[in-house]
Order: sequence, then structure tokens, then C-alpha cells
Amino acid sequence: MTLTSLPTITAFERSPDRGRGLARDMRARWALEEVGQAYEVRLVSFAAMKQPAHTALHPFGQIPTYEEDGLRLFESGAIVLHIAERHAGLLPGEANARARAIAWMFAALNTVEPPILERSMAALFEKDKPWYAERQPVLEERVHTRLGELSRHLGDADWLDGAFSAGDLLMVTVLRRLESSGLLDQYPALSAYIARGAARPAYQRAFEAQLAVFTGKPAG
Amino acid sequence: MTLTSLPTITAFERSPDRGRGLARDMRARWALEEVGQAYEVRLVSFAAMKQPAHTALHPFGQIPTYEEDGLRLFESGAIVLHIAERHAGLLPGEANARARAIAWMFAALNTVEPPILERSMAALFEKDKPWYAERQPVLEERVHTRLGELSRHLGDADWLDGAFSAGDLLMVTVLRRLESSGLLDQYPALSAYIARGAARPAYQRAFEAQLAVFTGKPAG
Repeated sequence: MTLTSLPTITAFERSPDRGRGLARDMRARWALEEVGQAYEVRLVSFAAMKQPAHTALHPFGQIPTYEEDGLRLFESGAIVLHIAERHAGLLPGEANARARAIAWMFAALNTVEPPILERSMAALFEKDKPWYAERQPVLEERVHTRLGELSRHLGDADWLDGAFSAGDLLMVTVLRRLESSGLLDQYPALSAYIARGAARPAYQRAFEAQLAVFTGKPAG
Repeated sequence: MTLTSLPTITAFERSPDRGRGLARDMRARWALEEVGQAYEVRLVSFAAMKQPAHTALHPFGQIPTYEEDGLRLFESGAIVLHIAERHAGLLPGEANARARAIAWMFAALNTVEPPILERSMAALFEKDKPWYAERQPVLEERVHTRLGELSRHLGDADWLDGAFSAGDLLMVTVLRRLESSGLLDQYPALSAYIARGAARPAYQRAFEAQLAVFTGKPAG
């Protein structure tokens, strides 16, 4: 079989989240599914991610990367934006609405995700430390600040700014990191927002595809 | 005086960095200076930033915001990208090079900045805690990992990917957060990179303008 010019992304050979869809390849997969673009996946091991063949694609030795004719990209936000710019369905056509949707992409990755990841990193690497319990409320408070602001903005709207956009796509993937934390319990609007995102057929196809890597069974 | 349709950004009335140019309005100012776009600045106090008049512009109650005819934006990354898309000078014209420059924008904000900010936050808020000293090497190691990868990518190039771009603009502002930390000492290529950015006339005009807010003296 000759592989043609389908875009190729990379994903973990064995995702540390055990197929829960929290690895960042999920963002690229979901975006590609939303716009109806078929793609190939190349799996990389943790060891291979730090080797020159991969760091030539991703200077920080992470996943996902994105390759198509003549273009090699890294950073999930940039990959989603690239897909959104080349296909209809992820950004509004009107220029100002488009700029606002992109603002939500940056907000998801630069304002909402960092305190969520900081808390996750502490849980992963400092749980046995004597200070873990005392730091937890501080880390949770930083997350709550952002969740409260986000929930207030969302109100009873379906999406962050009009129709579903790449901003919602990234925000939903960021918020899903909290699903097992209990921190979302006091924000029913945000839980409903995540559920709305996860109910989209494109999300479900992407989720099944990444889960199939973990289970070893073909998706669908 | 009738204010016309110049874009307006917001900045701290009294920046916590005492005019060192580390607040995020510097990113918007620098981008506007690079493309030769005059702008207005509205200063906001810490108290006002959390009030409805400002959170209507910025859901997370931060600076900068950006307003022009019919458009209100937040997130420094989105503001810089918007400026870069509307004017020549901050993104390559060729489509693939443009996508790569945008990847560096996301890398600066989502991969390089978080560990730098996490370390800064610990220094600000946990310096008197018994665990501060023990956590420091871990936080510094996370920063060093990124700096090492970035330095290896940069090599002896002037900029991250060809000509100076919005990706370099954001990366230089992110790295400048480390200037007083000593962590950059072992990366002469990164120190030279920051210096190259800071030597740009547009950077210097932006820096003087934000410093003038702090000193109360007019810039230039």
C-alpha cells in the first residue's frame, strides 16, 4: 500500500493516561475529525521522543507533531489552528469573530491549562512529600479562580463565543484533565460544556481512535 | 481632544515589576511598534481589573486587552497574532513558514512559559515555607530542560526559524522573566538571543513607553 499525502500526526505508543484521551494528540485528532480530514498516525515511544529523528520534528521532544507536504509542525495549539485555517468548521468566517475564537485558543492553553497542569504535576510527583497536603488547597484555589471566571463567562451559552470553534475544542480538552478531580463539581455549567464537546461525533471518533492505540483493537 | 480609531490596549496602572517590562502589555506594545501601528493605552488598577467594566473585556480579569473598531480581544498571544495578521513584519508571507512561526508563538506560551512562571510563583508566594529550598532544584530542573532544548534548537541562528517573527517576540518576552534568576548563565546562545530581541528599535520604544508609566515621565 502506498501512503499518499494524508497528513501524519504522532502520538504516544503507550499513553500514560491509558487511553483516557488526555494526551495532546487528542486535540489534533479531534480537529481533523471536525473538518473531515483523514490522517495517518505514527506512534512514538518515550525513548524515541527524545531522539534526533523526533526532536527534528519537535524541539521539545513531545507529541503531537503534524506533517504534510512540505510542512512539519509541533505544538497542539498551532496544529489545531493550522487545521482550522485550511478547512471550514473550526473558525468563524467573519474576521472579528475569528480573532475572538483564536483568543479562546490562547486562553485555554496559556491561562486555564497552566494551573490545572501544575496541580496534576504535584499529584504525580509530590504526593509522598510532607508538604503535599498543605500545598493542595493553594493549587486548587488557583484552578478554582480560573474555573469560576470561565463559568461566569460561559453563563448559559453552549459555547464560549457563538458557534463551536477551535477555542472550544482546546478548552474542552483542557477542562477534561479535571474530570476525576472533583473540582468541577461546583460548576455544572462547565460540566455540561465538557459533555457537549464530548458528545460531538468528531470528538467520539477521535476518542475511539486514540483509545484503540491503547487497547490494541482497531477503532470503530 | 477626540480620540480616533487608534487601537487601545490596557496595562497595569502600577506594574508589579516596577517597569522592568515583564508585564504582558509589553508583548502587545512591542508588536505594535514592530509594525508601526500607533496605539492608545488605558491604565487599570488591580481593583478595577476584577470589576465588570474590565472583565467584560477580559474574562480572567487581566491585562492586556486590545480594542479597535468593532473588536475586543484578550490574551497577549492572540493580540500579537492579530496584529501580525493585519500588518506586515511579524509573520512570513510563505504559508508553511507562517505556520511554523505561529508554532513558536504557542511554544513560547504553552511549553516554555509555564515552568518559568511556576518557579516565579514559588519564589513569590512560598519563599518562607519549609519546603521552598527542597522544591527549588526540581522547579529549576524543569526550566533547564526547556532551556536546553530551546538552546539546542537555536544553535547559532539569530532567530528560531528564519527571520524575526512573532514567535521570537513572544519567546524573548518569556525568557526575559529569567534575567535575574541566574538560570540563563549556562546558555550563552539564549542570552545573546534575548539581547538581540531587546536591541530592536521597536522593543526599545515599547520598553520606554511601559517604563514611563511606572516613572510617571513621558517616554522618549
